Amino acid sequence: MAKQATEYFSVRPWTVEEERFDPERNRVAEAVFSLANEYMGVRGHTDEEISAPTLRGSYFNGIYEYSPEQASGYLGVVRRTHYMINSVDYFAMELRVDGVAFDQAKADISDYRRVLDMKKGLLTRELVWKLNGKSVRLSFERFLDMEYPNRAYQRVSVRSDDDVNVELVFKTDFNVLHWGQPVQWKQVAVDRKCAGIVCSTRTTSQLVASVSHVDGNCNGRWYVSATDRLVCNTLRIRLEAGHKFVADRLIVNAVDKRGGDAAKLLDFASEELSRQAAEGYDAARKRNEAYWQRFWNKSDIVIEGDDADQQGIRFCIFQLQQTYHGADPTDNIGAKGLTGEAYSGHAFWDTETYCLPYYLFNNPAAAKYLLSYRYNTLEQAKKRARDLDCTGACYPIATLNGEEACTLWQHASLQLQPTTAVAYGIAHYVNVCGDRAFLTGPGAEMLVEICRFLASRGQWDAKNEYFGYYGVMGPDEFQMMVNHNTYTNYMAKQTFLFTLRTVSSLSDEERAALVAKTGLKQSELDLFERCADKMLILYDSSTKLFEQHRGYYELPHIDVDDIPADQFPLYSHWSYDRIYRNDIIKQPDVLMFMFLYSSQFTLEQKRANYEFYEPRCIHESSLSPSVHSILASELGLTEQAANFFGFATRLDLDDYNRNTHEGLHLTSIAAAWMNIVYGFGGVRSDGELLTLNPTMPSGWKRLCFRLGYGGCELTVDVTPHRLRLCSTGKLKLFVYGKEVEVCGETVIPR
Amino acid sequence: MAKQATEYFSVRPWTVEEERFDPERNRVAEAVFSLANEYMGVRGHTDEEISAPTLRGSYFNGIYEYSPEQASGYLGVVRRTHYMINSVDYFAMELRVDGVAFDQAKADISDYRRVLDMKKGLLTRELVWKLNGKSVRLSFERFLDMEYPNRAYQRVSVRSDDDVNVELVFKTDFNVLHWGQPVQWKQVAVDRKCAGIVCSTRTTSQLVASVSHVDGNCNGRWYVSATDRLVCNTLRIRLEAGHKFVADRLIVNAVDKRGGDAAKLLDFASEELSRQAAEGYDAARKRNEAYWQRFWNKSDIVIEGDDADQQGIRFCIFQLQQTYHGADPTDNIGAKGLTGEAYSGHAFWDTETYCLPYYLFNNPAAAKYLLSYRYNTLEQAKKRARDLDCTGACYPIATLNGEEACTLWQHASLQLQPTTAVAYGIAHYVNVCGDRAFLTGPGAEMLVEICRFLASRGQWDAKNEYFGYYGVMGPDEFQMMVNHNTYTNYMAKQTFLFTLRTVSSLSDEERAALVAKTGLKQSELDLFERCADKMLILYDSSTKLFEQHRGYYELPHIDVDDIPADQFPLYSHWSYDRIYRNDIIKQPDVLMFMFLYSSQFTLEQKRANYEFYEPRCIHESSLSPSVHSILASELGLTEQAANFFGFATRLDLDDYNRNTHEGLHLTSIAAAWMNIVYGFGGVRSDGELLTLNPTMPSGWKRLCFRLGYGGCELTVDVTPHRLRLCSTGKLKLFVYGKEVEVCGETVIPR
Repeated sequence: MAKQATEYFSVRPWTVEEERFDPERNRVAEAVFSLANEYMGVRGHTDEEISAPTLRGSYFNGIYEYSPEQASGYLGVVRRTHYMINSVDYFAMELRVDGVAFDQAKADISDYRRVLDMKKGLLTRELVWKLNGKSVRLSFERFLDMEYPNRAYQRVSVRSDDDVNVELVFKTDFNVLHWGQPVQWKQVAVDRKCAGIVCSTRTTSQLVASVSHVDGNCNGRWYVSATDRLVCNTLRIRLEAGHKFVADRLIVNAVDKRGGDAAKLLDFASEELSRQAAEGYDAARKRNEAYWQRFWNKSDIVIEGDDADQQGIRFCIFQLQQTYHGADPTDNIGAKGLTGEAYSGHAFWDTETYCLPYYLFNNPAAAKYLLSYRYNTLEQAKKRARDLDCTGACYPIATLNGEEACTLWQHASLQLQPTTAVAYGIAHYVNVCGDRAFLTGPGAEMLVEICRFLASRGQWDAKNEYFGYYGVMGPDEFQMMVNHNTYTNYMAKQTFLFTLRTVSSLSDEERAALVAKTGLKQSELDLFERCADKMLILYDSSTKLFEQHRGYYELPHIDVDDIPADQFPLYSHWSYDRIYRNDIIKQPDVLMFMFLYSSQFTLEQKRANYEFYEPRCIHESSLSPSVHSILASELGLTEQAANFFGFATRLDLDDYNRNTHEGLHLTSIAAAWMNIVYGFGGVRSDGELLTLNPTMPSGWKRLCFRLGYGGCELTVDVTPHRLRLCSTGKLKLFVYGKEVEVCGETVIPR
Repeated sequence: MAKQATEYFSVRPWTVEEERFDPERNRVAEAVFSLANEYMGVRGHTDEEISAPTLRGSYFNGIYEYSPEQASGYLGVVRRTHYMINSVDYFAMELRVDGVAFDQAKADISDYRRVLDMKKGLLTRELVWKLNGKSVRLSFERFLDMEYPNRAYQRVSVRSDDDVNVELVFKTDFNVLHWGQPVQWKQVAVDRKCAGIVCSTRTTSQLVASVSHVDGNCNGRWYVSATDRLVCNTLRIRLEAGHKFVADRLIVNAVDKRGGDAAKLLDFASEELSRQAAEGYDAARKRNEAYWQRFWNKSDIVIEGDDADQQGIRFCIFQLQQTYHGADPTDNIGAKGLTGEAYSGHAFWDTETYCLPYYLFNNPAAAKYLLSYRYNTLEQAKKRARDLDCTGACYPIATLNGEEACTLWQHASLQLQPTTAVAYGIAHYVNVCGDRAFLTGPGAEMLVEICRFLASRGQWDAKNEYFGYYGVMGPDEFQMMVNHNTYTNYMAKQTFLFTLRTVSSLSDEERAALVAKTGLKQSELDLFERCADKMLILYDSSTKLFEQHRGYYELPHIDVDDIPADQFPLYSHWSYDRIYRNDIIKQPDVLMFMFLYSSQFTLEQKRANYEFYEPRCIHESSLSPSVHSILASELGLTEQAANFFGFATRLDLDDYNRNTHEGLHLTSIAAAWMNIVYGFGGVRSDGELLTLNPTMPSGWKRLCFRLGYGGCELTVDVTPHRLRLCSTGKLKLFVYGKEVEVCGETVIPR
């Protein structure tokens, strides 16, 4: 079941380039060329309409609709989902030359080149269009503002060797499709002056405004026209041979997630548009490039010796930063970011498990905001716990607004890892970033509510001897409804223990505040202690193996290698229930908690469990290989580590999973970062000291990355023969098994 | 959680009577007063429209619609269900006196009496209606023909002390509601001559025709009018004081389940109507009463000393006979028979488990037809097995047409008991009725396909040491997805063994025919033998307990008595997943197979398991108490046996479950019969000889029932001090633990 790369984009260290256009790969290119700035995201679709397979997509963080409510007689089963909705198409455009509409899939084009410049945060497209014996050079450029999140920019230029008539129509269009179906945006205001429209969602009454201003280097007059949910800015000119016509469109998009006053929102947008116009296109582009330059100076990973990996990891970092950088504590990171409709924009437990580490070391403020998102949705989590007949807070498996969006009860009711992941995230954040104020305030409050949930969802065995979770699904979703899943029990135990440590570390004042907020009683703390103490952890010290869940060893065995390659993914080829009754693992489960709490396990324990579970795993989660790679690195299994790393950085660039056209795998992108930093870098951040065990795949000549840690900037620079550490301040670290103090530069031979 | 009786109907040995009309109980009365003749069923709704809560329902066995297909990405998950559809309202009527429409819920009525005469199969209603100072006596009568299944009869009579104008409109109306929603019957033919309509279902293109002929003792002229899906026969007369006007309507309903030629169906119906008219109303009623008399002579159960139970059990027998008596091998017994829309008319494994025994001893031909139904739907069962990635035949948990109708994968994919129940039914039928031709033909073919399914659905444990079922739900639906459910494993083992015995008993010719039909190979028989031999049965000989499934003993314990009464039923008060993670049992599971294969277990084994599991069972199935009562009888726990018997015969008459308004619990009705015959009668029919251990609840003075067995009629007549057995031929029996030969009358003191 080896995955196949589709090498379509050129490999360059700082750019992703499409040097010839293949209509069949158009949707993949749209995903890869996505731009975003956390506030909004837009796929890299062509400005003009195209007759190739396309998914024109424009999304705003937190703008969503509810599905109709499903009938169900069962309590605790989610009856309606919610989903990020495809929104205004603000880069839409029509371009006609001598009356012929440009369509890149049909036109006779040459000198084609589309470039995503990651250093500058800029997407450009250039080509020569031959029609009626004439040669017209077109170029397109767009970017989203990383500092002023409402602002977007579009430039189109036309140059011809002959005289031509040019008609340009810039459109702001709410008549969009979502999963191929028309979206019923409701127009609530329109303003020709700023070519603006405000539309409202149907079920959530949220507002989205889009206004724009166009300007061109010609004397022609722009005509504004408006029909339902569509505003057009039209210009017709005669372009003389050799002249270049350039038109810039400045765009402001603004949303009101709570659905306030449309006129007010329009006013805000149009004022912001004036400020944007005052700065102008070129100045803004320069400023935005400077933003990206500052960013790369801090967060780049340099890989020498493998251009594909170099480009791949930069693409990952670029997309992660675009999708989320902590602009707003009500934002989160969807599995597909803002690059498509798949997964409905939902954030999963991936956020705390796979994404958070990147932010811990690159952007602690953003890390804090991700946890604040959970704090801001604590009420929804408490409601969900009540729906499940429990107390405390149960975090959703999939959500945009904090409510559980998963209507499959087997996932929404049986998977507890989103909840323990929040507790883990708090602990991890505090351990790396040391934010005691967050811990003692919102952190402690969340921890108490999480423990309440865990104490009420867990049960004592028939003899009242041990505690644990019955009827759960761990991260390994191929074991649907089991008892004493060790991941769940272990994570819950750690959550209880961390909470107890946190509470006992509080000052009297802090504790009083916590009690005032949560009504926490000593009897509850006693219960949490008892739960942690009596938590059943299925461990056999003779084999050093953790049993994945009670009865796992007895399950019918399937040799993964015996499954014909054409039967993957299993969900598409096996009947639903068949998947759940054997020892195949979808994604690591025991290995996962051994990685998250790495410092609590010996190398021998890790080796034993890796050797037992690795052959049973079929990696039907794109997140699975990274964890295996990281553990393989630690165990010195360099070849396996490299194999599992394999396509991690290029999952989307080379479309390994054949579904990049639906959107980028944002959380896998985060896992690729972890794979490098935790895997080859050997970073571990769950213990008292930060640990480093840098190594490298054999083909690489140099790996260099930076970590923000302990108030310093730490550079980790590895070559085959030495490790160079460089810190802007004094840092105690654990390097290659020894405690090291770094200040300035330290070189350690390898 | 004691259930409460609502004593609404008068207790009489042969009738069910409503002596005053309570509009609030109208729907319950409609269910209780249902008439059926297997071909069709009609609720006991008033002929005229009524302004009380009502569910006018008319159903035909095997006439159904498909639901729209649901989206699901999962293989083997049923995407569309099908359901018995409310059909033509052929008893509909309007009655106006002096221009006022009669509405029983609003009219000033007295001398009211509605009577279901079970001895005669007749439903009558009489009352005096006072309006405008006049007194009008109305009477209504209806019955369905048990011998000519297309025929229905309706009589209305009016008598007044004053001169009145009477308008009578007999309607044949396809404009009906299903679950309160209009049904879109499609009219395909209409014929004024016979006041007939033919309509078609939408998704299955089945045809239903209804024609009628009215006649009255007056010279008035009947006018026929027709609008869409409605035909009316209208008469207006002047009725003189003291005169009695009687109008009879003869009705023929005919269906074409395969959707053939509407004109042909109409011809058939109208010819049948001529034959019906030739016989006439009174002669037909007399003939039908004779049918019921013959039936009761054979199948009555006499209970002396408890009129409520006497009435109750006769009501059960009457309804069971009405619903199904083996008229057509494509019919089956829906959980609610033909008395309502709940459960969609679906037949469940209840048929073979709870209903079949009644037919084995009363109507072997009908028992054979029930099994033939499974044979006729073998292809659907084979398709279902393939959908589940298995071979052989998997019988549906719920169905009308043989296809799986349950869209909840957890039931449809995990419950194997419908399949083992078919095998059990074949074995039981052959053991009691001795039909070797059925066994060696269709029986053996089904058994082979069932074993193929069971062999392919089962799995070997990790060490390849034992066989069993992973990811299953046994009859106890509170344990959703478990491994080695002992009911499932045990029943599968018995199925393999019975199949092997059957195959080895075949003559060369019979075996050749079986191989020709099924392609059966010796290697398959070897596999079946290995599966049976290595089947894991979780039994502890020291405690004599069967563990309900692997890990059951470890489950968190809930003391059933600790659950507040207002939390039942649990599905309505507990979150869905909460129900599945403790040791509460919904309905007997271990006790069930110990009853079905009674002869294979010692009394000590039965006692140990009864004592262990009984306290854990909350009986959230109406079928559960009967099995407990039967076992309690066997164990000499007479008080418990009586308690569990409790409301068995009167579940619907006294509306214990508060949902009789939706329809009668037909399969619970069958279980009530079993409760008396197998419980108090102590009958066991799974061994070589028929076993009898007759006893009685303390309040009864006499229990007398008849069994057709071994070609004889056996009367079992119990009083407190003796058992009288009477056989029409020579019979070897096991009575009170001793082998007895009965021929003629034998009296045994108790």
